[in-house]
Amino acid sequence: MTEPFRFDITARDGKARTGVITTPRGEIRTPAFMPVGTAGTVKAMMPESVRATGADIILGNTYHLMLRPGAERVARLGGLHRFINWERPILTDSGGFQVMSLTDLRKLTEEGVTFRSHLDGSRHHLSPERSMEIQRLLGSDIVMAFDECTPFPATREEAARSMRLSMRWARRSREAFGDRPGHALFGIQQGSVHEDLRAESAAALREIGFDGYAIGGLAVGEGQEAMFGVLDYAPGQLPDDRPRYLMGVGKPDDIVGAVERGIDMFDCVLPTRSGRTGQAFTRMGAIAIKNARHAEDPRPLDPECACPACTRFSRAYLHHVHRAGEIIGAMLLTWHNLQYYQDLMAGLREAIAEGGLAAFAAAFHARREEGDLEPV
Amino acid sequence: MTEPFRFDITARDGKARTGVITTPRGEIRTPAFMPVGTAGTVKAMMPESVRATGADIILGNTYHLMLRPGAERVARLGGLHRFINWERPILTDSGGFQVMSLTDLRKLTEEGVTFRSHLDGSRHHLSPERSMEIQRLLGSDIVMAFDECTPFPATREEAARSMRLSMRWARRSREAFGDRPGHALFGIQQGSVHEDLRAESAAALREIGFDGYAIGGLAVGEGQEAMFGVLDYAPGQLPDDRPRYLMGVGKPDDIVGAVERGIDMFDCVLPTRSGRTGQAFTRMGAIAIKNARHAEDPRPLDPECACPACTRFSRAYLHHVHRAGEIIGAMLLTWHNLQYYQDLMAGLREAIAEGGLAAFAAAFHARREEGDLEPV
Repeated sequence: MTEPFRFDITARDGKARTGVITTPRGEIRTPAFMPVGTAGTVKAMMPESVRATGADIILGNTYHLMLRPGAERVARLGGLHRFINWERPILTDSGGFQVMSLTDLRKLTEEGVTFRSHLDGSRHHLSPERSMEIQRLLGSDIVMAFDECTPFPATREEAARSMRLSMRWARRSREAFGDRPGHALFGIQQGSVHEDLRAESAAALREIGFDGYAIGGLAVGEGQEAMFGVLDYAPGQLPDDRPRYLMGVGKPDDIVGAVERGIDMFDCVLPTRSGRTGQAFTRMGAIAIKNARHAEDPRPLDPECACPACTRFSRAYLHHVHRAGEIIGAMLLTWHNLQYYQDLMAGLREAIAEGGLAAFAAAFHARREEGDLEPV
Repeated sequence: MTEPFRFDITARDGKARTGVITTPRGEIRTPAFMPVGTAGTVKAMMPESVRATGADIILGNTYHLMLRPGAERVARLGGLHRFINWERPILTDSGGFQVMSLTDLRKLTEEGVTFRSHLDGSRHHLSPERSMEIQRLLGSDIVMAFDECTPFPATREEAARSMRLSMRWARRSREAFGDRPGHALFGIQQGSVHEDLRAESAAALREIGFDGYAIGGLAVGEGQEAMFGVLDYAPGQLPDDRPRYLMGVGKPDDIVGAVERGIDMFDCVLPTRSGRTGQAFTRMGAIAIKNARHAEDPRPLDPECACPACTRFSRAYLHHVHRAGEIIGAMLLTWHNLQYYQDLMAGLREAIAEGGLAAFAAAFHARREEGDLEPV
């Protein structure tokens, strides 16, 4: 009998790895990008279209779903997968990140966080125990431990205090999660940009033991150079045989650099949010579709892309519907951006499998430098 | 050799008819409902999804397209069909209806209408000649004559004056349209709710000669009873062997009643607009999806509907995404409403073919009366 949740690394290239996470709801090819489905929908996409781009897994937000429609309601309706019509794996965050960002509306104690809903001001509570309960009610396949995402910048003292609180919460999360075959619990490393704090956090998580390990507290304003600085050592502090997930990252070049440093999983709102605001990612760089230069351009967004926006419509059309505020503009650009991200991940996986990641990364950067396009 | 634009009536039931309009871009089964694609998109729908509901033809708005992206630009980009990725027939209105509604921004003379754009205040002109030119540049398959849609209520004198202006414009439209094999020009009957004025208008149009005949100036506030009053005689004033198009209609029961009175074609923003505002049409009547009664309802919107909203999602999900303002709410409800309308048209065509329209209409009304649903 095989384990119901398993990670098999099939090839390595330098620090990078490619492999497969096996779950009862299907396989996740790594390195993997998880589209964000905040409130029960990957915005402007039908679920089958998300799958058509190549996504093996999507992310749901505990904070948004607990407030609306509510975790208990989702459970009574048969769980999140059935509710949103996505039968493949779902990873849920712990709710911590969003709650912490409600600076004026929350109160943090050792026990957990009390906060007011941004929707209606109603009072709610999150703790390691309640977060585990909510994620269980949702039916999440990969559950994240409840943590405090340390803000940036933070003093070393603040970073240490915050990380140690997250480690105590990680232990409570592990205990509250219990034994749920087929469902995985990931711990989250904190420690800001301090190597020794990151090491202390990694040691604490390893001692507790998780099915996978996330690197948290990055992509919060520190910049790519500082982020890569942490990624030069942080993945190596975590178990080699478990998936490593870099939370909330990122731009395409962030992802390439993070994969080179040993990251297996990513999530980010960038492709979906940018799709709604008219930014498109292409192999030649980014395009701001609202710009007048696209108004009469009959060419596709990206001639190498197989998505509907690129194979069936011109830049001129995408410019028109974006300017007119038409919903199809958001639908098409979101689809394209998710396709771009999944194509990038497929390229990275193939390059690692062939031992050609350095050449892939060099070609990736060279094409973007050649491109005469608008920066995002 | 067959005519490039042709109308064949295949069955009759009372005053109702079913048949096929043949065009170089494909057949249009009648009675037909044309989804409205105002500015180059049937809002919130991919073109292939519009087709999947059973639509044979869509409508484009000359007023919106002439302002943005501009008719000349659409022509340079290969025409409207290529621009919006809809290769089947397109009917364009003349622009008159929208321009007339710009009460404070337009100036009407015998020659035509000068107006200011609602987008940027820029000055534009429409006349029978310019309307024909714009619709030719767009590449429309069914072109509408330029007319004045007589407001309701209007005095008899106003209605007569307005109708006679439209008839002079109809002649100029016919002359400006010229001879364009494979493209059709439809005249528009006016005359408000006055049978003799409608007769005068019909005679004028028949003398000019058109490929099809629209009934204009209805669904402008007169109510269903007054509209049906006109439809009791107006279709019979128009040629029997040409398509009859009731512009801007309507609610499902308007359509059933109009088909019973001999109408072949319809367009209306109701299914698409309602989809975005959370109103769903079902076989049991209308549903306001925002209402709390749907919040935990696991049932489909309409168990007899084959659209994605009904086969893959619950009312509870549709309620949730509508309340959350998620784009997928508009996508799913729009798809459903268009599917409902196309299913209704298919049912009407089949009933007429079988000589069972009266029974179909009786069953249609009875089910809606049984339904415990919210009125739209």
